[in-house]
Amino acid sequence: MHRSVSSLVRHWLFAGLLAAVSSFAIAEAPQQKTQVPGYYRLMLGSFEVTALYDGAIDLDEKLLKSIAKRDIQRLLARQFLKGPKVQTAVNAYLVNTGSKLVLVDAGAAKLFGPGLGNIIDNLKAAGYTPEQVDTVLITHLHGDHINGLVTPDGKAVFTNAEVWSAKADNEFWLSEEIAAKAPKDFQAFFKMSRDAAAPYLASGKWKTFDSDRELLAGVTSVDTHGHTPGHASYLFRSGDQSLLILGDLVHNHAVQFARPEVAFEYDNDPKQAVATRKRIFFKAAKEKLMVAGMHLPFPGIGHVRKESAGGYAWVPAEFAPLPK
Amino acid sequence: MHRSVSSLVRHWLFAGLLAAVSSFAIAEAPQQKTQVPGYYRLMLGSFEVTALYDGAIDLDEKLLKSIAKRDIQRLLARQFLKGPKVQTAVNAYLVNTGSKLVLVDAGAAKLFGPGLGNIIDNLKAAGYTPEQVDTVLITHLHGDHINGLVTPDGKAVFTNAEVWSAKADNEFWLSEEIAAKAPKDFQAFFKMSRDAAAPYLASGKWKTFDSDRELLAGVTSVDTHGHTPGHASYLFRSGDQSLLILGDLVHNHAVQFARPEVAFEYDNDPKQAVATRKRIFFKAAKEKLMVAGMHLPFPGIGHVRKESAGGYAWVPAEFAPLPK
Repeated sequence: MHRSVSSLVRHWLFAGLLAAVSSFAIAEAPQQKTQVPGYYRLMLGSFEVTALYDGAIDLDEKLLKSIAKRDIQRLLARQFLKGPKVQTAVNAYLVNTGSKLVLVDAGAAKLFGPGLGNIIDNLKAAGYTPEQVDTVLITHLHGDHINGLVTPDGKAVFTNAEVWSAKADNEFWLSEEIAAKAPKDFQAFFKMSRDAAAPYLASGKWKTFDSDRELLAGVTSVDTHGHTPGHASYLFRSGDQSLLILGDLVHNHAVQFARPEVAFEYDNDPKQAVATRKRIFFKAAKEKLMVAGMHLPFPGIGHVRKESAGGYAWVPAEFAPLPK
Repeated sequence: MHRSVSSLVRHWLFAGLLAAVSSFAIAEAPQQKTQVPGYYRLMLGSFEVTALYDGAIDLDEKLLKSIAKRDIQRLLARQFLKGPKVQTAVNAYLVNTGSKLVLVDAGAAKLFGPGLGNIIDNLKAAGYTPEQVDTVLITHLHGDHINGLVTPDGKAVFTNAEVWSAKADNEFWLSEEIAAKAPKDFQAFFKMSRDAAAPYLASGKWKTFDSDRELLAGVTSVDTHGHTPGHASYLFRSGDQSLLILGDLVHNHAVQFARPEVAFEYDNDPKQAVATRKRIFFKAAKEKLMVAGMHLPFPGIGHVRKESAGGYAWVPAEFAPLPK
């Protein structure tokens, strides 16, 4: 057999083309490796509620106080979790009441590591802009709830919003006197509070309230101090539906629902924090109140069930489409 | 005082402009009323798993068999749910093994009402196209798992895919003899099976397997018959991680985890369905096996916990970012 060079070249070209076509046909679909946007929505009467995911941070089980290590491990195992580092969500909630766009807490920004700081991206994914927010309600002046109020160079992120928090938290976290006497480890917390408040204080948009108070139509602050001196929860009510946004009444759902007496390292007043948790769990379970928590697994919305053994269980709400 | 007409006109114009600016400044942000896209992703070793939401359908609590009505109501209430109509999710799962893109079940299309039929939209939102799917694994030939295989005019949706299901389900649901003898209410089920299989049978891409079998590297069918004669679950294994995609071993999580002996109206063989559920729950709880279910609350991924009172509890996996 004899083949001319040009015939061989044509043969190679054709073989090459075939290989290209065939490799195209069996091309593997590349893995996407992106997560779904971090928001989740439900209607509460005529209020539109959007949970926003700031991200997750791993917290050491040692931050849980007045409980034996083996009990922590047993309670984590019941939820198919494992210490010593436990994934902990940071959530915020955006409520469009129809007349006001209200954000509850603003996340950690990038000051608690790269896993957090996604509130604004997720707020945008959910169809809103920071400029549209009318009111920010702050549960307490800890960095993972307020750093998101400001840009890295200290400007207001929510340029058209009033920012509300409890007077008692302001008196503590914005006090330079108290900060000066605080342990070194806590200095950063005080600084974060002052930095977050600064541009809103300067523009006269930083507001405080005394205790339980209706701040907007259908939106009431609920005094739940203990974790911080002025820790507040917020009750949203529309029609016959209610949602109590707890704030930091729970830091670890696997442990603290079953054992509400377990305190958290950063509780200002652990005894009061425990008493408040027990009081609100009791009320939520009894009234079948829908609640949301900043450190409950995203979207962090659900109910609290009283268990026969004492203690409580977290019952997350089911994913659901929006009503048509 | 005297004003010229032109001064009055200027005044009105200016007032009008002010009003426009002011109404812009206080413009209410319109409610978005859209839900987050219905997908959720996690890594299983080197496999990328994406839960896809077909939607939700309300099922009557009466479809749950061999349980008293008051027990159903008590178990629903424990999860803060209420009958008689209970929201029931329909999920599918897309696994990118790195070499194959594998879809487990294809949803109901639009044949079970407007609330379902969103698999393709959510698959696209998750970054894939139906043409990229290499293999569809079917848990069983019920309409809410297979209607999504075909377009309304009977064409294949997954044009490049082989579709696998268990031989025993084929022998039952594709049999015209059995269909002819079946009660009238069931005729639609048989027709849906034939319609879904037709284009793939015609192109030689409809495949069947006998029983437990490794179908692809890391992907094994697990015989879980009872709900249908050939009902199959699928075990995905990569590295030291496993996920068992259950199919329809549970239709109502609130009732059937606590009481696995509760059968479902559409079980072909209720006794066998119950025995299979008990066997797989026992195994999943003992081995701490991650499982996924087509009718568990979306994304339907989690673990099964043995409860001290007998019975089991559903423990949904926590929302998590993808590993970097």
